[in-house]
Amino acid sequence: MTQNYVIIVAGGSGKRMDAEIPKQFLLLNGRPVLMHTCKTFYSFSPELSLILVLPAAHIATWVALCKTYSFTIPHQIVEGGPERFYSVRNALHLLPHDESLVAIHDGVRPLVSHETILTAFDTARQYGNAIPVSPIIESVREKTLTGNQIIDRSNLQLIQTPQVFISALICKAYEQDYSSSFTDDASVLEKMGEKIILTQGNPENIKITRPIDLIIAEALMNQRGRA
Amino acid sequence: MTQNYVIIVAGGSGKRMDAEIPKQFLLLNGRPVLMHTCKTFYSFSPELSLILVLPAAHIATWVALCKTYSFTIPHQIVEGGPERFYSVRNALHLLPHDESLVAIHDGVRPLVSHETILTAFDTARQYGNAIPVSPIIESVREKTLTGNQIIDRSNLQLIQTPQVFISALICKAYEQDYSSSFTDDASVLEKMGEKIILTQGNPENIKITRPIDLIIAEALMNQRGRA
Repeated sequence: MTQNYVIIVAGGSGKRMDAEIPKQFLLLNGRPVLMHTCKTFYSFSPELSLILVLPAAHIATWVALCKTYSFTIPHQIVEGGPERFYSVRNALHLLPHDESLVAIHDGVRPLVSHETILTAFDTARQYGNAIPVSPIIESVREKTLTGNQIIDRSNLQLIQTPQVFISALICKAYEQDYSSSFTDDASVLEKMGEKIILTQGNPENIKITRPIDLIIAEALMNQRGRA
Repeated sequence: MTQNYVIIVAGGSGKRMDAEIPKQFLLLNGRPVLMHTCKTFYSFSPELSLILVLPAAHIATWVALCKTYSFTIPHQIVEGGPERFYSVRNALHLLPHDESLVAIHDGVRPLVSHETILTAFDTARQYGNAIPVSPIIESVREKTLTGNQIIDRSNLQLIQTPQVFISALICKAYEQDYSSSFTDDASVLEKMGEKIILTQGNPENIKITRPIDLIIAEALMNQRGRA
């Protein structure tokens, strides 16, 4: 069987972190968010090869946290770059340019479901890429030059991760020069002319970026634990 | 001082409710969601005249719940119509066509902050309308005829409530014939050629529409209680 991979991207260079604790190290039910995220993929499949991309400045902290929390899930650490693009590229340098599948995931999305991961892997195996999305449940307005206008939310989808790709394809895409239009991995692949395939994400798969997200994530995790 | 109003819209005709408990009657920290919503506005200002729009089929249930939960916040009940548009219109029939302000709010948004309400009232007093919004924090793709494309989320805003209006303006807008393009009250006013003014909402001001929203709302409410 082919070896598959998951690259978990945990923060950029830390340039905007200052004195704050990086989001991925904040405690969620008493453990760093990033450990929950790693565990989600490990429990999905212990056969996945896990690569963690950390800013150089945070590697020592992570290693210390692993000791403190007796975190033993096997993983490889790669140093991040000045932009997310360079962080992912550094990790992709470790991969074979073949038919292996690679999932690229945000370190601060611990609540991705196994179903979302499975669907994305199955779809990427068939079509080359898979991008989990979820619908927008509120009305949306778009700012225009003269004001704003309502837009049809039924055509809009929120992008989640893991974005899953055939390794050869995404490695080739990441040979392109950096562009500020690369907002995620799908947009890097798209620049090469590939068609982007959307798959079903799960609504709890939130990105922990604001203080209230940590509260929400804890509630959702506890609910899942009870279910 | 002018009398101001809040219309709380609690469900449509109930045509899709079947045997389920309507969302606004689900228990949040042991009390129906709708009671929390009413209380938020009452604690913002007990001077506001509160009008509750309920489907005819739910009025008796609501009255019974008020007794069960000793709910004593003064309010007037208005019967809803077959679409949200008609429900709001029924409530507006009670209002004077003058400079009074009227906030129109979703019954299933109990977590609106006093600051969001105050900003919307202040803005509507000056400009005729005010629509609270919050930014989208995830990347967004739009489905197109041939696939999908990434769109600039920095121009997108999620629409919240209360949407606040000068009474004379919104009453006149609701004299228009119903259109399926009326996704909220702002879109009804906009059809008359009025410019829509966006104000800052609060991220916790979520709409309770899915099971996970109730879990999230409870966590956010408990956090607010502790803060």
